[in-house]
Amino acid sequence: MEDYNKQIQEAISGLDWQMQPANLYQPIEYILSQGGKRIRPYLCLVANEMFGGNAQKAIIPAIAFEMLHNFTLIHDDIMDKADLRRGKPTVYKQWNTNIAILSGDALFAKAFEQMMSYQGTGKEQLLNLLLQTTLEICEGQQLDLDFETQQNVQIDEYIKMIRLKTAVMLAACLKAGVIVAQADTVQQQLLYDYGIQIGLAFQIQDDYLDVYADVNKFGKKVGGDIMDNKKTYMSLKAFELAQEEDYQQLQKYFSGLHFDKEEKFNNVKAIYDKYEVGKEALSLVEELYINSISILDSVNIAEEKKSELLSFSKRLMYRQF
Amino acid sequence: MEDYNKQIQEAISGLDWQMQPANLYQPIEYILSQGGKRIRPYLCLVANEMFGGNAQKAIIPAIAFEMLHNFTLIHDDIMDKADLRRGKPTVYKQWNTNIAILSGDALFAKAFEQMMSYQGTGKEQLLNLLLQTTLEICEGQQLDLDFETQQNVQIDEYIKMIRLKTAVMLAACLKAGVIVAQADTVQQQLLYDYGIQIGLAFQIQDDYLDVYADVNKFGKKVGGDIMDNKKTYMSLKAFELAQEEDYQQLQKYFSGLHFDKEEKFNNVKAIYDKYEVGKEALSLVEELYINSISILDSVNIAEEKKSELLSFSKRLMYRQF
Repeated sequence: MEDYNKQIQEAISGLDWQMQPANLYQPIEYILSQGGKRIRPYLCLVANEMFGGNAQKAIIPAIAFEMLHNFTLIHDDIMDKADLRRGKPTVYKQWNTNIAILSGDALFAKAFEQMMSYQGTGKEQLLNLLLQTTLEICEGQQLDLDFETQQNVQIDEYIKMIRLKTAVMLAACLKAGVIVAQADTVQQQLLYDYGIQIGLAFQIQDDYLDVYADVNKFGKKVGGDIMDNKKTYMSLKAFELAQEEDYQQLQKYFSGLHFDKEEKFNNVKAIYDKYEVGKEALSLVEELYINSISILDSVNIAEEKKSELLSFSKRLMYRQF
Repeated sequence: MEDYNKQIQEAISGLDWQMQPANLYQPIEYILSQGGKRIRPYLCLVANEMFGGNAQKAIIPAIAFEMLHNFTLIHDDIMDKADLRRGKPTVYKQWNTNIAILSGDALFAKAFEQMMSYQGTGKEQLLNLLLQTTLEICEGQQLDLDFETQQNVQIDEYIKMIRLKTAVMLAACLKAGVIVAQADTVQQQLLYDYGIQIGLAFQIQDDYLDVYADVNKFGKKVGGDIMDNKKTYMSLKAFELAQEEDYQQLQKYFSGLHFDKEEKFNNVKAIYDKYEVGKEALSLVEELYINSISILDSVNIAEEKKSELLSFSKRLMYRQF
């Protein structure tokens, strides 16, 4: 993984943002230099290498997707009124909303420009993949916003939302790597499907960790989703399972903002405990993990070439933060 | 012009926005169905026909640019806190800011998708043109935002800003038409340069009309720029020319928001009158008009084929609203 990260870091450092007007380009440099896990470009490079592709070529879509991802973060943080990301003020907090809208737009254009710089077979397909992924992410984010005011969100609607908002980008990065390596469409689709499974697993794991993470290890504050009345796998499952007074308790807690934080968290968690919502979440994560492994099984390459993604799946599965 | 408009209208009506989630796609249908002058697709079709291109092909970039234009309007209206556009509530007013950010992003992606559907020679060039134009428009809008708090904006900085914010898109539409018609790069550049001249003329005419338009004919309210303390050609030229007390009067009026509307407009207009700022503006518009005609002169096609753009230049030049 370190080799990949080094390559990604070099490519990102090599991007030039010393352009005018500074208020348009500095926010882009700011967010891109903050790091983050760089999972998306990593997956693109890994998938490409699995199929014997050229890493020098794969780095182009890898970075295009990382740019696209950061564009969505800039705009999402405005919409979600998020003050901090990766421990630093978000772009709209550090500058202002107008600058965040506009530098997000510019970064979106730059992501396409990055992809346009790709030369060789598959360019058209890569551009279309970037486009479709963008539209799906917008759809996912809109569904997430819709859910805020929608009662009775079903778990399958929620899964559809996180597939669009989170999983498709991971899937697209993997597929992009396979396209660069010029493997056939069946392999492309398999890696895409693998990405959907791990993307869903990742998000549901995140929902679980919001409640049950070890406070000392978890990067974010525990209980944030509960505090914000967010619809997550945890809360939706709890609403599905809870009976009578427990259901009413949940309704009370998830319809107001002015509860004592600790009291609310502890009482909601007690209901989750009672109905084993955490267990349900982990068993779904495991199911998705098993799906992802079985998809990898059917990929038509030597088994040893799958080891990187296998251990990636495992790391996701057993992560505690 | 009617033929072109019919073709544009048909193409826009043929776009399908009946997709989910409705809160993402309905705002796009809303803004695209409002009409507006459709100058951008018109210019693309005209330039293409001048060089004997295929109108069926040119309609694709024409609509891509119209979509791009409307994406910038959705986001600009948030930034400028504009409540009305074309007599109707702006997207962020009709829905909300989050939906306006997100549906703008989706429309941006759709503009690229539209351009991606172009088949044939010049596709790569058209995609790059769309990208570069987008980045320049972002730069122009950022400069405009910067000017709000910047003292002593010079007229050449202002011209640079309106070139980026307004003129490059007109220029790009014309160039796109020439690319589709497969005329050489010299002709492409000439039409681009023509577009820059008329784009600048259009904006400066707009600045002039804000002060001197016939209230009954002008689409917008007269004096809006003065009321909002906007930096325009008019105000910047006035600051450049005004002496002593007049300069101080301008400074007073352009640094506050709580003046009586009529008093402020009349007193500022009196200073414009005294220093003949309107005359300066009109003489710059004429200079730009003459430039545009002389660029058209050097375009290497039969003179009669230039008549549509010549009369377009004239209409712009003598418009009173």
